[in-house]
Amino acid sequence: MSHAPSAALKPRHQAVRDACARANVDALIVTSRSNILYLTNFTGSSAIVVLTPDRLHFITDFRYVTAVEGLQQSPQACPDLDLTIVDGAYDATLAKLLTSLGLTRVAFESAHVTVNRHSWLTAALAESRGPQLVPLEHTVERVRLRKDEYELATLRESARLLSEVAKGVFSDVRLGRTEREVALAIDARIMAAGFERTAFETIVASGPNAALPHAHPGERTLSENDLVVLDFGGVYRSYCSDITRTVVVGKASARAREVYAAVLEAHDRAIHTVGPGQSRFAIDAAARDVLTSRGLGEVFGHGTGHGLGIDIHEDPKVTRRSGETAGNDDEAVDTGMVFTIEPGAYLAGWGGVRIEDDVLVTAHGVEVLTSVTTDLLEL
Amino acid sequence: MSHAPSAALKPRHQAVRDACARANVDALIVTSRSNILYLTNFTGSSAIVVLTPDRLHFITDFRYVTAVEGLQQSPQACPDLDLTIVDGAYDATLAKLLTSLGLTRVAFESAHVTVNRHSWLTAALAESRGPQLVPLEHTVERVRLRKDEYELATLRESARLLSEVAKGVFSDVRLGRTEREVALAIDARIMAAGFERTAFETIVASGPNAALPHAHPGERTLSENDLVVLDFGGVYRSYCSDITRTVVVGKASARAREVYAAVLEAHDRAIHTVGPGQSRFAIDAAARDVLTSRGLGEVFGHGTGHGLGIDIHEDPKVTRRSGETAGNDDEAVDTGMVFTIEPGAYLAGWGGVRIEDDVLVTAHGVEVLTSVTTDLLEL
Repeated sequence: MSHAPSAALKPRHQAVRDACARANVDALIVTSRSNILYLTNFTGSSAIVVLTPDRLHFITDFRYVTAVEGLQQSPQACPDLDLTIVDGAYDATLAKLLTSLGLTRVAFESAHVTVNRHSWLTAALAESRGPQLVPLEHTVERVRLRKDEYELATLRESARLLSEVAKGVFSDVRLGRTEREVALAIDARIMAAGFERTAFETIVASGPNAALPHAHPGERTLSENDLVVLDFGGVYRSYCSDITRTVVVGKASARAREVYAAVLEAHDRAIHTVGPGQSRFAIDAAARDVLTSRGLGEVFGHGTGHGLGIDIHEDPKVTRRSGETAGNDDEAVDTGMVFTIEPGAYLAGWGGVRIEDDVLVTAHGVEVLTSVTTDLLEL
Repeated sequence: MSHAPSAALKPRHQAVRDACARANVDALIVTSRSNILYLTNFTGSSAIVVLTPDRLHFITDFRYVTAVEGLQQSPQACPDLDLTIVDGAYDATLAKLLTSLGLTRVAFESAHVTVNRHSWLTAALAESRGPQLVPLEHTVERVRLRKDEYELATLRESARLLSEVAKGVFSDVRLGRTEREVALAIDARIMAAGFERTAFETIVASGPNAALPHAHPGERTLSENDLVVLDFGGVYRSYCSDITRTVVVGKASARAREVYAAVLEAHDRAIHTVGPGQSRFAIDAAARDVLTSRGLGEVFGHGTGHGLGIDIHEDPKVTRRSGETAGNDDEAVDTGMVFTIEPGAYLAGWGGVRIEDDVLVTAHGVEVLTSVTTDLLEL
């Protein structure tokens, strides 16, 4: 459930309307589920929004009508909402609405709409003498980059609850338990803490499995001297938190201590680098340079972090600068942005270490939202 | 985890290759995660497959290389796999591979690829003098429609395990518990039964909430005479099962018995209609006609069922025939297809009933995969 007060939704609408005006379009068709939730508080799985300069047209089907009507009678009502109930199919209803509104140029979310859907809509609108479709990308996402006060309060609470979960989780890690058993115990703690759901499939990767950054928890039994990567997250009032700690079962080997210390230094350095105006590539480099200097640069194959919010992976992406892709813009982070810092080192056949916290860029630098010891725990 | 033996993957590849030959293309780019899993056994979240007449090119990044290498050394190895590790970005790696293979016409999944991604690839391939991109839809999905022996065994087991869960769930429904508490208890049973995860957010909708077909379980306490809709599913070895039962807390009212009996008759009639060659619209009509004859046609606002497999919602869709959409083809169901039958009736302010089972079309008619009483239980 999301619960932004109506007053918090208005500036979000305005920011998107401003972007539409700059792009010289009459309206934006919003089809991304996360973007719809952000603009309306609607948590269902099927809807389309058409945001015009003065209304928010909301298309949904039978299954959600009662929920929308309930929302509209609450203090979290979506401003200026006009409800259209799907008649037949969503896209046919959308084409009819767009045509009836007499619009000329309407933007769609080109990063979310499929080629098929776009072809169908284009043909339908040509037939009905409806508006022209204009591709626009990251319009709502760009607004979502900087979290508002409601979102920050929710993200802080989500991270606080997850930190409490993490402290309990350390007692679930025991010699002889399987990865899967530990993962189930973590999931149970997440749900008991008041999260709606886990934010992703919980990772419990032990011994050599810890060398796989995205391992599925399996039937492997935790054994003496294992490094165990514990990576889990929760969704609280629609906002995600995400944490990773790596612990040892029994005693840590000298090599484990060495790799852990390098990853922890990379983690700490990256966090200290965070502040308004700082390049996301520089934050990544802060972590990467530490690992490279310890001979672990090659085994840190992923980015240092990812944005957190309604989605578990959103902008900004804290990664290496890549010459090949279009993702090199918007590179400076700014106040109100929330993302993870999660360097790791993965040594095939041996194991791995990852340490992850959630951070918020503040006017003064950085606020770490998660709060759990980063000492190497021997359990 | 998915575990189809290598031998089971070969006919899947061949069926897709045959479809490519009919469409006069040299290869298919597969980007849908479920389609990739179906063709390769890969359960990670990031990969691209390029299926040519003799090879399966598999693009993934650093995080999954060890997992793929492990898979390839197992009896579930993907045949003819050539691994390409992402260098920079996925789509840049894809464009380079397509160009280096010297292909001329390459299909992409137009129902999955976004407008943005298509534009980028088209420009990159023009620059590198790579192949022309051709939209193709439902190519792998059409093969997935009829489940093979491995899939049927897995789906049967998934449904059997879920039926066992359902029997236990009835003891979780008690006066005074909240919907959320019951949902957590259901989720715990699903995980304890050996499922990888729940197939969707468990629905526990009581009293008036039962009128919302997709309610979130909330803080409402189960009260005397409530109808309670319990809808849950599990993912077992990557294959989904899905069941709904509606129960009563305390004694059922006369009206509850009446609505329940109508929905149950709709459910039974629809199941009896299932068989090879039967129209999916006719199966829907069998359920809908019963409800209409009882004055409940207007409050049954969704389709009668949906396909089940790697995805919780896949083809065939057992719905009303719609004049407006392109989805009116492939209307006859055939042996090996698996889908739900789940009519419902939702009375705003009063409550609702839904009864759902999973069925398989066999040469002789129908096999019901889930096995739980459909008597109205008073708990």
